[in-house]
Amino acid sequence: MSEDHIYDECGVFGVYGNAEAARLVYLGLYALQHRGQEAAGIVSSDGVRQYRHHGMGLVGNVFDRPNLDRLEGHIAVGHVRYSTTGQSVSANCQPIAANYHGGSLALAHNGNLVNAFELRRELESNGAIFQTHMDTEILIHLIAQNRTKDLRDALLPSLKRMQGAYSMILMSEDVMIGIRDPHGLRPLVLGRVDGSWLLSSESCAFDILDGELIRELEPGEVIMINRDGLHSEKPFMTTKQHLCMFEYIYFSRPDSVVENQSVYENRKQLGRQLALERPIDGDVVIAVPDSSNVAALGYAQESGIPYEIGLIRSHYVGRTFIEPDQKIRHFGTKIKYNPVRYVLEGKRVIVVDDSIVRGTTSRKIVTMLRRAGAREIHFLSSSPPIKHSCFYGIDTPDPAELIAANMKPNEIAKAICADSVYYLSIEGLLKATGREANCCLACFSGEYKAGRPENFTKDIMEKARR
Amino acid sequence: MSEDHIYDECGVFGVYGNAEAARLVYLGLYALQHRGQEAAGIVSSDGVRQYRHHGMGLVGNVFDRPNLDRLEGHIAVGHVRYSTTGQSVSANCQPIAANYHGGSLALAHNGNLVNAFELRRELESNGAIFQTHMDTEILIHLIAQNRTKDLRDALLPSLKRMQGAYSMILMSEDVMIGIRDPHGLRPLVLGRVDGSWLLSSESCAFDILDGELIRELEPGEVIMINRDGLHSEKPFMTTKQHLCMFEYIYFSRPDSVVENQSVYENRKQLGRQLALERPIDGDVVIAVPDSSNVAALGYAQESGIPYEIGLIRSHYVGRTFIEPDQKIRHFGTKIKYNPVRYVLEGKRVIVVDDSIVRGTTSRKIVTMLRRAGAREIHFLSSSPPIKHSCFYGIDTPDPAELIAANMKPNEIAKAICADSVYYLSIEGLLKATGREANCCLACFSGEYKAGRPENFTKDIMEKARR
Amino acid sequence: MSEDHIYDECGVFGVYGNAEAARLVYLGLYALQHRGQEAAGIVSSDGVRQYRHHGMGLVGNVFDRPNLDRLEGHIAVGHVRYSTTGQSVSANCQPIAANYHGGSLALAHNGNLVNAFELRRELESNGAIFQTHMDTEILIHLIAQNRTKDLRDALLPSLKRMQGAYSMILMSEDVMIGIRDPHGLRPLVLGRVDGSWLLSSESCAFDILDGELIRELEPGEVIMINRDGLHSEKPFMTTKQHLCMFEYIYFSRPDSVVENQSVYENRKQLGRQLALERPIDGDVVIAVPDSSNVAALGYAQESGIPYEIGLIRSHYVGRTFIEPDQKIRHFGTKIKYNPVRYVLEGKRVIVVDDSIVRGTTSRKIVTMLRRAGAREIHFLSSSPPIKHSCFYGIDTPDPAELIAANMKPNEIAKAICADSVYYLSIEGLLKATGREANCCLACFSGEYKAGRPENFTKDIMEKARR
Amino acid sequence: MSEDHIYDECGVFGVYGNAEAARLVYLGLYALQHRGQEAAGIVSSDGVRQYRHHGMGLVGNVFDRPNLDRLEGHIAVGHVRYSTTGQSVSANCQPIAANYHGGSLALAHNGNLVNAFELRRELESNGAIFQTHMDTEILIHLIAQNRTKDLRDALLPSLKRMQGAYSMILMSEDVMIGIRDPHGLRPLVLGRVDGSWLLSSESCAFDILDGELIRELEPGEVIMINRDGLHSEKPFMTTKQHLCMFEYIYFSRPDSVVENQSVYENRKQLGRQLALERPIDGDVVIAVPDSSNVAALGYAQESGIPYEIGLIRSHYVGRTFIEPDQKIRHFGTKIKYNPVRYVLEGKRVIVVDDSIVRGTTSRKIVTMLRRAGAREIHFLSSSPPIKHSCFYGIDTPDPAELIAANMKPNEIAKAICADSVYYLSIEGLLKATGREANCCLACFSGEYKAGRPENFTKDIMEKARR
Repeated sequence: MSEDHIYDECGVFGVYGNAEAARLVYLGLYALQHRGQEAAGIVSSDGVRQYRHHGMGLVGNVFDRPNLDRLEGHIAVGHVRYSTTGQSVSANCQPIAANYHGGSLALAHNGNLVNAFELRRELESNGAIFQTHMDTEILIHLIAQNRTKDLRDALLPSLKRMQGAYSMILMSEDVMIGIRDPHGLRPLVLGRVDGSWLLSSESCAFDILDGELIRELEPGEVIMINRDGLHSEKPFMTTKQHLCMFEYIYFSRPDSVVENQSVYENRKQLGRQLALERPIDGDVVIAVPDSSNVAALGYAQESGIPYEIGLIRSHYVGRTFIEPDQKIRHFGTKIKYNPVRYVLEGKRVIVVDDSIVRGTTSRKIVTMLRRAGAREIHFLSSSPPIKHSCFYGIDTPDPAELIAANMKPNEIAKAICADSVYYLSIEGLLKATGREANCCLACFSGEYKAGRPENFTKDIMEKARR
Repeated sequence: MSEDHIYDECGVFGVYGNAEAARLVYLGLYALQHRGQEAAGIVSSDGVRQYRHHGMGLVGNVFDRPNLDRLEGHIAVGHVRYSTTGQSVSANCQPIAANYHGGSLALAHNGNLVNAFELRRELESNGAIFQTHMDTEILIHLIAQNRTKDLRDALLPSLKRMQGAYSMILMSEDVMIGIRDPHGLRPLVLGRVDGSWLLSSESCAFDILDGELIRELEPGEVIMINRDGLHSEKPFMTTKQHLCMFEYIYFSRPDSVVENQSVYENRKQLGRQLALERPIDGDVVIAVPDSSNVAALGYAQESGIPYEIGLIRSHYVGRTFIEPDQKIRHFGTKIKYNPVRYVLEGKRVIVVDDSIVRGTTSRKIVTMLRRAGAREIHFLSSSPPIKHSCFYGIDTPDPAELIAANMKPNEIAKAICADSVYYLSIEGLLKATGREANCCLACFSGEYKAGRPENFTKDIMEKARR
Repeated sequence: MSEDHIYDECGVFGVYGNAEAARLVYLGLYALQHRGQEAAGIVSSDGVRQYRHHGMGLVGNVFDRPNLDRLEGHIAVGHVRYSTTGQSVSANCQPIAANYHGGSLALAHNGNLVNAFELRRELESNGAIFQTHMDTEILIHLIAQNRTKDLRDALLPSLKRMQGAYSMILMSEDVMIGIRDPHGLRPLVLGRVDGSWLLSSESCAFDILDGELIRELEPGEVIMINRDGLHSEKPFMTTKQHLCMFEYIYFSRPDSVVENQSVYENRKQLGRQLALERPIDGDVVIAVPDSSNVAALGYAQESGIPYEIGLIRSHYVGRTFIEPDQKIRHFGTKIKYNPVRYVLEGKRVIVVDDSIVRGTTSRKIVTMLRRAGAREIHFLSSSPPIKHSCFYGIDTPDPAELIAANMKPNEIAKAICADSVYYLSIEGLLKATGREANCCLACFSGEYKAGRPENFTKDIMEKARR
Repeated sequence: MSEDHIYDECGVFGVYGNAEAARLVYLGLYALQHRGQEAAGIVSSDGVRQYRHHGMGLVGNVFDRPNLDRLEGHIAVGHVRYSTTGQSVSANCQPIAANYHGGSLALAHNGNLVNAFELRRELESNGAIFQTHMDTEILIHLIAQNRTKDLRDALLPSLKRMQGAYSMILMSEDVMIGIRDPHGLRPLVLGRVDGSWLLSSESCAFDILDGELIRELEPGEVIMINRDGLHSEKPFMTTKQHLCMFEYIYFSRPDSVVENQSVYENRKQLGRQLALERPIDGDVVIAVPDSSNVAALGYAQESGIPYEIGLIRSHYVGRTFIEPDQKIRHFGTKIKYNPVRYVLEGKRVIVVDDSIVRGTTSRKIVTMLRRAGAREIHFLSSSPPIKHSCFYGIDTPDPAELIAANMKPNEIAKAICADSVYYLSIEGLLKATGREANCCLACFSGEYKAGRPENFTKDIMEKARR
């Protein structure tokens, strides 16, 4: 039932200064579930001891009342994961927790380091052992191999060693630290509720707690929260704003605010911009639900063509669907989407999706719409063509499998059986989101502003991860 | 996490003449999952023996490969249930299966009998024992207490004893029978795939199989399918078309066709009619997702006010959510919905919901929208006021709890903190669906065209059900 | 992992007059777990309503605190099952519960009717429907088809219709009734604890509750317990004592007292009698643990040959053991037993088992002992040769598969690779247990004192059960 | 349901050179299940990559076909754990697996280090992070912090740093190494099957595979197995034979051979020696089953007093037994044991148990026997009085809780309601097992031959483990 899509690696959530810290983290993770459905974990601290629970599956399945009750203390950090490595194993659950000469640490990480392989090799040559395949383990080793007892003094130089994308929440027995990489590739927001501090991948997780969004952490910002309050610093020489554009296009929930911009607004602008760039004489605009609903609405509003719900999405799809032995056409897709003949029959249909990755799902959807009577099908992507791998924490296939890396739009249209295919331009993306290149466009342009793995080969990457 | 809504009791699906009958039923039930999430069951037959599996939970959890493999045979009937009785126990799973003097029977039933109490009392006085609390058991007893060996000859007089709502699929070792009550209260459609016959509560379940919708069964129609093909008859003296209007308003999936009408189209017309009846000077139209999306779209299209997605619905809500000890405002609702501030802030918001039952969820939603910055909130119901209990298979609270039975719209507006409340008129409902009173309006009007329980008291009902 | 053994069908336990009735039944079933590991169920009553829970698996897995808490009331009846039909399905769980014209009933049954087929046919022809394959359902139908409202008046004539083996606990809203068939084939004992009445298949279940064994019910005795106390009657014209000898040989726990005789004592006498009948010049006596421990001890004590523990039994064997692909000799048996080389090496070993059914397990054990160094192996059965099927509730294979029905002891010795095989004589069995033929020896002698199914064929039996 | 007993920490099992390595380990762990029921794990290697699976619970529950199938490769090491720390969490599962500069390692450990705290502090000060609370992690760190690439060269000096008890199986991608500490505190045996090498805590695990016991590893022996075969060395200056006597008294299965001695034989000798030291004028000898069966048999054989089975042990006791609200005397014990009145009534009973720890269970058993009619009860322990904590991997309570550390036998007799209490003498233990002080008697004598933690306090221990 796996779909042809790109995936974010994870969501992180932290609470400092609440008697129910772990339970609030549980709720926060719940609101971040769209960022990772494979595993969930929470580490808490009562100022002296750490408590940990994690497991494979949805937040609601991993945690129950007894194991939440055992997560004592006023600090807690949690994590939901979508695994990029294919190693769907329990050992790779976050937050990672460890003891070192300075006490105990726990770390929840969203992102991907580009120099992970080199750092692991160096740390191992200094005697480190790695018990997981996660980049997350690297920062803890960097801190541990530092002689300094003071956590801040050990942390800052360690961060400077790390290249790539990371938004992280680190906790010791009595401190919670939020960290965003100098490029600000992945989001991390600060909030409050009832006098407690909150950190989250997305602001929508504050809403579930009646919490208040204070602000996004700045690129390169390190926020330390302890009993004396909050202390912010920016230890990096240079910092740049290079937010991953897929937070607006696809990852973040539309009710979140990322870098002070409404995801909903930006997503609508993507649709509007699409309509400006590629006006089509159509009868109806439909989305591939639910991630493209807002962009499709934007296209409809800009073009004046009516927005309709042309595909019904089932939300009961579990992991273990049993397929019939007799082949039913496009079965996997059918389990998830069903076309509404009334909306489609005889119509010139404009379909808005957030992206086209391999094109396999797109073809199934187009065929499905056509069988439901659509006369013309114009397939629009609210992201520019994805032509390059992401090294910053997003699961993209090898370029050889990326359809836009290998075909032109008119060829793609043929390949997915659509009458036409159009991708939002990179300029359009920047305009719609009000960015002036101060963002990460690597998967579209191949320009890796936060670096890329040296001598990169799939092999080495995989070896590094093992 | 239970919501203030009304619920249908169930969905039924049957396959005749397919080597993978049980597996097709499994898929069909999967597409009907929105009609009942509490329990699921399938009975199959290989012409000689019956096989049965059922359990509490979603279709995807109740069935796995081994238990599906054990459901041998070319005939299979399935059922998904939402329990109205609060007796969420395994014994009450359908289809019910039994042996009698004529062989074996299995029955899947959608609906509710109004003379169940009397029939049970009579059957018991003739020596029957009841092992479940389900009306379904009654028909099997009626057939069994008939001396006739011929199933058809025993069935037809038995049906005539039953009053109320029923769409049913009955199977013996080698026959599948679809039955719709003379009033046609609940839907039942006939379909085909690869030479096999299909029966389903809704046509959307045919789509998942690449099946073809043949037609709706007519009120009072009995269709018998065996190796000689399909035989239809209408044994009832009088039959009337009294489809439950909530199939269009809420129960059926928008991609289904009910009594030859697109649910999507009708649902849109409800929204358009609302706009005609109650034009509002608003800035934005939003739905309470997902059931009201199409009606809200209709209102927006008719009024010219933009449709936006003002509430994000989480689809990860499981049954066992652990609430925090500290009270978070409107917590249960918040787990399910989150408002989009960007859409709402400073706006005059028109909210379209499919119904207002007790008003408790409505109040939470209005308060949530207001906290997200909505300036005015006008709450519209795409159904007329629900003032009376349903005796035909829908779970409605006691009239004392129905807000519309006890307050006028302006009082309700105050109660739910909205600026105004408006209900679609009954005339508007008829107009929007193209009906001329040939439908069931009992919960709005109190006119029970298919009868109501004699000497009805909650007490007696409950006793009858025990 | 299924073993070549015979199995009893079940254990029953009932409590009248205790605020924690269901919980006491849970404990009682726990102590009766050896009588059935496939399914467990409890029905309770608070005088007005019945509550029911059951499921597949061990008592400890089927019940948890929440579902036990829902089993309210001062009366409760429970059942553990080993299924004889191969239909390991949830529908066949006991106690069966039903409503009829006189109110509600629940019934837990241990045994097997020989006229079940005829009774079902007759009941069906009177309009009854059967929802399970269990004989248990028959008595409830017999009561329900009786016009009398009074439970006693309906019960007594119904019992007279039933032929075969049954020890049962029947309960209505406010009465608990213990019933033993006129032949007394299966045991049923009466007990007390803290003023509450107890009924149980075995007395060992009273011990766990600190309860007191009052006495065995007499064959054909019916004991009704209600608020007025206990009332006993013997409604049958003739009653005979025909207890199943396997209660002493194998089924009952050695700490139970069956028909006023210690199972431990009788089992030891079987071993002593074996030693008298078949003295062997051996070095060591070992049991096939745990069921034959006491008999082996008896042989050792009588013969003066030392008793040793020559086979270690693992108690961690679950239902789903994964075998290696490469064949390991006698793997299944090895998982369960391991020989102790120290005890066996170079020795002339006398092995005592409770029975030899097909001989397959016996052969594996003998081979295992020989590989561990045993010089001679004499295999003794503490039951006479099993040559006939049991129709009274014990799962025996078809005579064609019973090794003793087809071979003589010396042939069997060859077949199972033993140096000799000896079976206790029927006379020895009677002597050891102090019986004078007032017991059931059907599986040894073929004399079915409580009748046998008419025109019996496997086919008809199976059809009757479907 | 926890019992008043002492517990071993674990069992280890390894296979080198078999295409089904993981599956054989699974079977081996199954046979070692008595050494630890809390968690189980396996790591395998195909020469390049490691595969790992572990979980809480019994072997049969942790592993299923799919996860066993994923454990590819020709080398595999497994572990069953009984946790001594009370930290029953998944993170503490063994074998531990890690990458270091020399590749990958996995380690399964049975024992306890006495200098763990110091080693952890030192390793941490060198930059190590600890992700578990297990001593096992220490050896991997010692190897990793060594600059040598060669595993042997890094291992041997690391072993020399470790003080205390350890029998371990270490594996890299292509080597399996068995290690026994210089005192030989915990057992470890070498075996073969079908050309593959086996290592195991006990020889009984070879039997299940039709494997052959080669020999016990010698104290201080390190056996490296790779494609070139087996290489043994003894890197320690001095080695002494100090096997833990509880392997004979209680831990090992009677069908195992430990240090070339049959456990069964030794256990019987303990009973015989007891009879010589403490002859009693009794009527019957019974064991507290199952661990004391053989010793009781020894007493009976030496004394000539008949051995009987006076307590029936239930094997269905799960972890989550629900107790009744009303107090039943000695409930927990009753769930596990039931006395056989026939054996006990009016008798002078000699009870043999393997040890008396706190005395709480002993008292319950004595009371239970007395209620079943025993006239006199003489309670014998086949181990000498346990007066001191074990620091070598056995879970013993604090001396303050050890009844023998605080009372004399006659006081203990009074405390547990017995007529007399007798402990085997230390001399008797040595004589029965044929040892001449070349064994560990620390828990009896307080003489810690393999050292004890410096500045030991419970606090420090616990801190070290956190």
